[in-house]
Amino acid sequence: MLAEIVTIGDEILIGQIVDTNSAFISQQLNKIGVQVYQITSIQDDREHILQTLNEVSKRANLVLVTGGLGPTKDDITKQCFCEFLGDTLVRDANSESNIRHLFEKYFSKVPTQMNLDQALVPSTATVLINANGTAPGMWMEKEGVVFVSLPGVPYEMKHLLLQQVLPKVIEHFDRPFIYHKTLLTYGMGESSIAERIAVWENALPKHIKLAYLPSLGKVRLRLSSKGVDEKMLHEEVNAQMDQLQTQLKDIAIGYEDETSLVGRIGEVLLKKDQTLSLAESCTGGAIAEEITQHAGVSSFYRGSIIPYATELKTSILGVDAQLIAKYNVVSNPVAEAMAQRSNVLFKTDYAIATTGIAGPAKGDGNDEVGTVCIAIAGPKRVISEKFLFGKVRERVIRKAVNKALELLWYEISKN
Amino acid sequence: MLAEIVTIGDEILIGQIVDTNSAFISQQLNKIGVQVYQITSIQDDREHILQTLNEVSKRANLVLVTGGLGPTKDDITKQCFCEFLGDTLVRDANSESNIRHLFEKYFSKVPTQMNLDQALVPSTATVLINANGTAPGMWMEKEGVVFVSLPGVPYEMKHLLLQQVLPKVIEHFDRPFIYHKTLLTYGMGESSIAERIAVWENALPKHIKLAYLPSLGKVRLRLSSKGVDEKMLHEEVNAQMDQLQTQLKDIAIGYEDETSLVGRIGEVLLKKDQTLSLAESCTGGAIAEEITQHAGVSSFYRGSIIPYATELKTSILGVDAQLIAKYNVVSNPVAEAMAQRSNVLFKTDYAIATTGIAGPAKGDGNDEVGTVCIAIAGPKRVISEKFLFGKVRERVIRKAVNKALELLWYEISKN
Repeated sequence: MLAEIVTIGDEILIGQIVDTNSAFISQQLNKIGVQVYQITSIQDDREHILQTLNEVSKRANLVLVTGGLGPTKDDITKQCFCEFLGDTLVRDANSESNIRHLFEKYFSKVPTQMNLDQALVPSTATVLINANGTAPGMWMEKEGVVFVSLPGVPYEMKHLLLQQVLPKVIEHFDRPFIYHKTLLTYGMGESSIAERIAVWENALPKHIKLAYLPSLGKVRLRLSSKGVDEKMLHEEVNAQMDQLQTQLKDIAIGYEDETSLVGRIGEVLLKKDQTLSLAESCTGGAIAEEITQHAGVSSFYRGSIIPYATELKTSILGVDAQLIAKYNVVSNPVAEAMAQRSNVLFKTDYAIATTGIAGPAKGDGNDEVGTVCIAIAGPKRVISEKFLFGKVRERVIRKAVNKALELLWYEISKN
Repeated sequence: MLAEIVTIGDEILIGQIVDTNSAFISQQLNKIGVQVYQITSIQDDREHILQTLNEVSKRANLVLVTGGLGPTKDDITKQCFCEFLGDTLVRDANSESNIRHLFEKYFSKVPTQMNLDQALVPSTATVLINANGTAPGMWMEKEGVVFVSLPGVPYEMKHLLLQQVLPKVIEHFDRPFIYHKTLLTYGMGESSIAERIAVWENALPKHIKLAYLPSLGKVRLRLSSKGVDEKMLHEEVNAQMDQLQTQLKDIAIGYEDETSLVGRIGEVLLKKDQTLSLAESCTGGAIAEEITQHAGVSSFYRGSIIPYATELKTSILGVDAQLIAKYNVVSNPVAEAMAQRSNVLFKTDYAIATTGIAGPAKGDGNDEVGTVCIAIAGPKRVISEKFLFGKVRERVIRKAVNKALELLWYEISKN
């Protein structure tokens, strides 16, 4: 059984938005054993949509289509499905009352005719009521192939997919099991890892695939396998993963999905009843954002100070001005003092501090763009390190975030 | 002339990474008048790659392929190109010395044989040396169709595309002009905008297309046109855009590319020689991160405090504990006090403060998940508003960021 995803929208083809829907749909389909064969992004163009629907129906048993269901004139997906299926649009009473209900509840007003017309659906479609938006989802069939049309708004698409589409897919199709397991590693490059694990990798059975997924200071290693015996599949992949982790125990922090670096840090801090604060200068809130993306962090994370302007490191954080004058604002001693002062200010056990030049312009010091000093202050000691993270602002910040969390992880798991 | 993009990698089809490369490539091709007809994502699978190369060569004049050029065994794009072109791999001397140079400079070590083999390329390919990585880009031709193979690492792909591929595309192909202009609006929904501008929209000439791009509190409105007369194209679209902006002047903040909300805020603050600080509780650094993503903000943005734990609002920020006891931590009076204290602490003219429950768990107060109070304190007055942003943590935070910047914008542009 194969699935394909088709995303419709001019905004994707001109690069105005990044298609995040396909990744989410692929993840979810994989979890229930449905392999995604291809993802195709096309424009809001009648001929192209019809041609694509014809092509995918030759390759796949299940086609998920997102986008083109809005109330405005540029949205034509439903009209195209009618042409493709030889069907006509009819008004769906449940969708219409859903639209009226949503308008009353959230906007306290009556929907316009344009909004009410979102209740028009192909007459043979099974309607999937969208509790979070005015565009209904639709489940359609043609010559044994299932087509599901979903709104392009990620939030609405996700809810419809999880609550209505996946249960129907599970009921409708026989599926094999697919099993992926991904090891998270920090601090070693892709080819150095490949060298170290070469003997093991060459001995991997043919039906288990290894993939390297490198990004800015971390490498994820994914093992994948597919089969009918779920138990054996898990046992085989897990046994290989154990061997892999043994060979990489100095750089592996755990498995993706089960954990993240922030998750692991939180677990250890909670167990020890310890807390964390941040003093972020050049990372400007990016570490705080990374941490607070995870729910439940308020049990160990107390807060942050972002002394973006140099003099605030003294006036608010209380770093000695003479230290800054002596060593320069981007220096290990200043980073260490910032981290220590952060622990005092926030009454925390651990603090991360960053100071550097994210670029593109040079900062108050004499350092090269991309220079970042990171310090970790803990109950027993304070450490710091100076890095050169390249010239691209966004990458400098992202590398500093990953490295700071990696350093913190090694400090708290050691002590 | 039509282009297509093909991204290769199992990690895309199982949803482990989001394909951001396609959006970037599409943007850049559009700027030089090349329309992207389709984006196709496929697996690291020999047959599927060959089949896709065959299909796209029937539809497009230019095909950009990313991914599958890594040093490890799962990467097979080059071998597939050899099969497709009827070619064989040869060692490229310039790529090999580039690899040796990069290893020496950044890792102070000698490359492994696996790394050196990244210098193998199809013998008929024009090699595009990758100054930022070990995988070379390749420009290949078959029966009048140009195929460009680029590494999947976004940073390496971007540099190769901008510095080497685009100049060659401009030289090699005749292209029409494509012109897009996008108006940014905040604070009104898609269908309310559509109703207001219906008369104008219906009168739009056929060759100018309007698209609505809504997302969490903002709607972008894009006009697109294509033609041979660049000057006329710009004049026509700009004239229509003027009419559109006139009708939406209460909600429009400017044009995308030319500006962003943070950019506009920065311009006005700089002109008035005023500064900004943040006191972010429930948004946890997301506003700071949004601001510091923009280069040059240090001229008006001084810093932030993130008093994530309730008692820090008192101990560090200096909000009166009795105020919190009286009104509750998630309340307009507390948000206002936080913003005012932030101005005092950071010696700034304007401050944004947020306090709320991002969820999924309830916070220290009695409020519903999704409740957020936002305050803006300026030289003349302090304002605050209480919102209910739904139940999904990530969306609550994102909506709060957009709304906070919108409120700040209206305050500074009014006063």
